[in-house]
Amino acid sequence: MSVGPIQDLSKLCIHTITTKSWSLEEAGENYEKAGVKGISVWRQYLEGRNIAASGDRLRAHGLGIVSLVRGGFFPSISSETRKKAIDDNLKAVDEAAALGAEMIVLVCGADPGQSLEVSRSQIQEGIEKVLPYAIDNGVKLAIEPLHPMYADTRSAVNTMEQANDMAEAIGSDHVGIAADVYHLWWDPHLEKEIKRCGANGNLMAFHICDWVSPTVDMLNDRGLMGEGCIPIQKIRGWVEEAGFSGYNEVEIFSDRHWATDQHDFLNKIVKSYKGC
Amino acid sequence: MSVGPIQDLSKLCIHTITTKSWSLEEAGENYEKAGVKGISVWRQYLEGRNIAASGDRLRAHGLGIVSLVRGGFFPSISSETRKKAIDDNLKAVDEAAALGAEMIVLVCGADPGQSLEVSRSQIQEGIEKVLPYAIDNGVKLAIEPLHPMYADTRSAVNTMEQANDMAEAIGSDHVGIAADVYHLWWDPHLEKEIKRCGANGNLMAFHICDWVSPTVDMLNDRGLMGEGCIPIQKIRGWVEEAGFSGYNEVEIFSDRHWATDQHDFLNKIVKSYKGC
Repeated sequence: MSVGPIQDLSKLCIHTITTKSWSLEEAGENYEKAGVKGISVWRQYLEGRNIAASGDRLRAHGLGIVSLVRGGFFPSISSETRKKAIDDNLKAVDEAAALGAEMIVLVCGADPGQSLEVSRSQIQEGIEKVLPYAIDNGVKLAIEPLHPMYADTRSAVNTMEQANDMAEAIGSDHVGIAADVYHLWWDPHLEKEIKRCGANGNLMAFHICDWVSPTVDMLNDRGLMGEGCIPIQKIRGWVEEAGFSGYNEVEIFSDRHWATDQHDFLNKIVKSYKGC
Repeated sequence: MSVGPIQDLSKLCIHTITTKSWSLEEAGENYEKAGVKGISVWRQYLEGRNIAASGDRLRAHGLGIVSLVRGGFFPSISSETRKKAIDDNLKAVDEAAALGAEMIVLVCGADPGQSLEVSRSQIQEGIEKVLPYAIDNGVKLAIEPLHPMYADTRSAVNTMEQANDMAEAIGSDHVGIAADVYHLWWDPHLEKEIKRCGANGNLMAFHICDWVSPTVDMLNDRGLMGEGCIPIQKIRGWVEEAGFSGYNEVEIFSDRHWATDQHDFLNKIVKSYKGC
């Protein structure tokens, strides 16, 4: 499906980390003023707060609470660390339920001290251990495949195909996939695997930003939509064709943009969102 | 096939860029003293030299001249730049023939101003334009699939599968693939695609180094074998099972190692090579 540029802000969601220096309250207020309609909350922005009250406050700003970010980091060569990871993910379920977030985004993790295959099996095991509690609390778990440049320490799940395989192996309507263009744009099988993901009911989230050239930092040099080379509109077409009708979540880590006035940055986000 | 650790240096080749500050003459002399048996020559080390005489000198040091590095960089939104790239690759063929190098390694290129699909088609077109001259001069062209983190500007060919597709589409015994563990280790289809590559007679070169954690620079932070998380021995087993019996080429770009005494670094290369 060929889609045109985005015309309005009705599906615009922003991750709190994108406007890094703003508190949750500042983000809520400023996003509303800018016409943003959804928010994905990184867990550090909840520290020291009454989470349920924070959720109510965000909703009072007209913001849908799209996801809690992030759970995961299941693999480790240490069984004690793996157990701690499970505990932390159970805590994330509590937080998501209290906040009223529909899902938790999973940055699955990897340990360079063991093979990717072992890390992947520990990821699946971790998700399966957390899943019953997530179901009880009405919280979904979204596997986010990460770019292969993060395969050593951040995620052993690096393609949409692998995420599909894992979500299908687990086989729960509470486990799906968060597709982020930054991680996936290079993959020649992306269209096919997005289609498969949608057909299996597993497409839970869609994240956008851009890949700038040159990229000077492996983590914190993402671009605004249009600043880079990712065919965002084409990928959004595949995602919508696959049946996804949720938010387009802007998730930009950028030392460059974080160093600027965050109101100006938010204006640029809105401007680059329209038309992407 | 499960292989054991490397026992001797008979297949050890080093890329001149690995010992960056050494001239070609210094590299030849020092590699021989260290027991190295092959050399892959980066083109900048030939500047201002009689290339045929340089080749003779390297062979007099007992070094097999494995490859000339690098050709490629075919794609561009500018047709003039694409034409210049062809000319430069023809020049590389002359250099490889004069040097007595069996193959040229192709870093295929990409242009962030156009789609990956267009860049790939320009890569194939570029190779096909250079190929007759390469055949006439007895020089092979090895497509090197590059890590997806280089898809914006360095190569639109990012997996072994894509390289296999392209080499098979071109269908010449003078076009094959250089497999580098740094670019490929994360790929869940690697074993299958190495097998396919060997079965089609396209496996021309095998490059080794390691992926360190954390990686602090996207280009120049490669590790010595064993310093990182790449299962080098397992991948070498696949490569040998696929019928490859050529050199194991050490290609390390590392600001960290380049800042040390290069004789010490060479000793570390030899030590980490034995047993990897």
